Amino acid sequence: MQATQETINEIISHATADIKYPATAPGLYEPIIYTLAGGGKRLRPRLLLSAFAAFAGDRPVEEALPQALGLEIFHNFTLLHDDVMDNADIRRGRPAVHRKWNAGAAILSGDAMLTLATEYIADCPADKLQTVLRLFNDTAMQIYQGQQLDMEFEHRNDVTVNEYMEMIKLKTSVLLGCACRMGAFLAGASEDACEAMYSYGVDLGLAFQLRDDWLDTFGDPLEFGKEIGGDIVNNKKTWLLITALDESDGELADIMREDLDPQERIRQVVRVYKRLDIGNRCNALVQEYSAKAIAALKDIDMDGSFRDFFIELAHKSASRTH
Amino acid sequence: MQATQETINEIISHATADIKYPATAPGLYEPIIYTLAGGGKRLRPRLLLSAFAAFAGDRPVEEALPQALGLEIFHNFTLLHDDVMDNADIRRGRPAVHRKWNAGAAILSGDAMLTLATEYIADCPADKLQTVLRLFNDTAMQIYQGQQLDMEFEHRNDVTVNEYMEMIKLKTSVLLGCACRMGAFLAGASEDACEAMYSYGVDLGLAFQLRDDWLDTFGDPLEFGKEIGGDIVNNKKTWLLITALDESDGELADIMREDLDPQERIRQVVRVYKRLDIGNRCNALVQEYSAKAIAALKDIDMDGSFRDFFIELAHKSASRTH
Repeated sequence: MQATQETINEIISHATADIKYPATAPGLYEPIIYTLAGGGKRLRPRLLLSAFAAFAGDRPVEEALPQALGLEIFHNFTLLHDDVMDNADIRRGRPAVHRKWNAGAAILSGDAMLTLATEYIADCPADKLQTVLRLFNDTAMQIYQGQQLDMEFEHRNDVTVNEYMEMIKLKTSVLLGCACRMGAFLAGASEDACEAMYSYGVDLGLAFQLRDDWLDTFGDPLEFGKEIGGDIVNNKKTWLLITALDESDGELADIMREDLDPQERIRQVVRVYKRLDIGNRCNALVQEYSAKAIAALKDIDMDGSFRDFFIELAHKSASRTH
Repeated sequence: MQATQETINEIISHATADIKYPATAPGLYEPIIYTLAGGGKRLRPRLLLSAFAAFAGDRPVEEALPQALGLEIFHNFTLLHDDVMDNADIRRGRPAVHRKWNAGAAILSGDAMLTLATEYIADCPADKLQTVLRLFNDTAMQIYQGQQLDMEFEHRNDVTVNEYMEMIKLKTSVLLGCACRMGAFLAGASEDACEAMYSYGVDLGLAFQLRDDWLDTFGDPLEFGKEIGGDIVNNKKTWLLITALDESDGELADIMREDLDPQERIRQVVRVYKRLDIGNRCNALVQEYSAKAIAALKDIDMDGSFRDFFIELAHKSASRTH
């Protein structure tokens, strides 16, 4: 019998807590332990192990555990370095590493996490190593490209919706696609199935990120868990802002140039969003990507309970409130 | 006929200039191109290709070129991130990346270099991939440990000579050992030969670094190319300082606590060094490691001209003036 989502979550929690670190220079590993103990949704290892289980028959999911951990460590490495680049103070309700230690510690321990992630990814059967490693390295490079574009967009006022979609695909979605594909590949799924799982993960990621943009402006502050309107106050180029800038005939651009206090700025921008029906249109796009993710799995032969899990996850990501 | 040192140097120069970068987010790659165009001794790729050639018979050194480039890219990645951590303004006579761009660009482009390096390292025959990758990842982790210890030593006044030797071994020497071992391994050398090449590289690195410490205080400013005494002014814990602190009965510690102008501080510290014969003893140690490096090759069957190259390199490193 294959693992349930509950056992998968437990396996990931235990394995993350059980990572063994070298004894030399323990100060290098303290920020890593701190970061990995910070929790988070563990979405990438869950996707990887679920994709493995969906195609692995009775083989235990532990076979793919090193790669699941590798992607979780890699994801946390990107957050750690992003927080230094974005000068972010808080991560998951706690001081970011570069605040709790310093920028040097965050840079160096992040580097060690990238190498540690590569070690875990490479801990797989020799006949699968080259493919798994290429998928991982290609994905990592795309994520840096996404972060680079995100940083460049901060200084640009002419970002198009297509550019934005490309950026979030690179920065966020391809890693979910990578997790799904790697799990399926390690289980021995067909190339068609691997490709379908990759498409599923990428579209899931796009739905997830667009819903995140929507929640930041239209979410319920109590459920969302952070203040509403942060993106507006920070002039962050989201799907909402880029679309409204393009369609508001200079009105939104004028508001953004004004020196308004934060609450007034949010009020005025939301007024433009509502006039252009931006919120509903964003959510319609979320539904579209969620449906596309589910459609990718249609003709793929896989374990029924894991198919249900993937379908439910796509639905949930499109309607999530936090 | 095997390649000469001259052709090896040319192959490395051309290949470094010919690296192809993805077309997406070109801003990510500009700091990488800038860094790799900065020159340097190209010591690691030269060691790797020479070690390959020493055991490869007539096979062309180009077989090991991806790994040679991988180590050069990796080494430059560590310099790029170290410069951010150490807040260093200048690298190889030009502004450091975080000065020419900014810290965010230096962090992100450095991350991309580490992944790029891993891609090059992994571009090797499938039956050698696991061993090559493990050597690379283990070495990378040791280098981060060395940098961590180096940063910790800045805030400590009780660093021992043994701790210092361990730190420079991790931070500098193991990468030279890795280059030598990887080249020999890719050529198909015996495990004994690989191990001997590794020992050679590590001891060469120790000789190299200790000579660097010596040059910073006792070198000829015209030949050394940077100002003499920088380590003393910056209170850098080198072999010279640690040994003299241990043996000068508090005299050196007193000098270091005084608020002296740089030239006076250099004069007083050098006076203590001379009284304790620190300079000559440091150079004796350099000679010792250089001789040990050469001795490691003694019973190893390898191409004669490359054996001569390795021996000459060890001699040169121990007597270099810049």
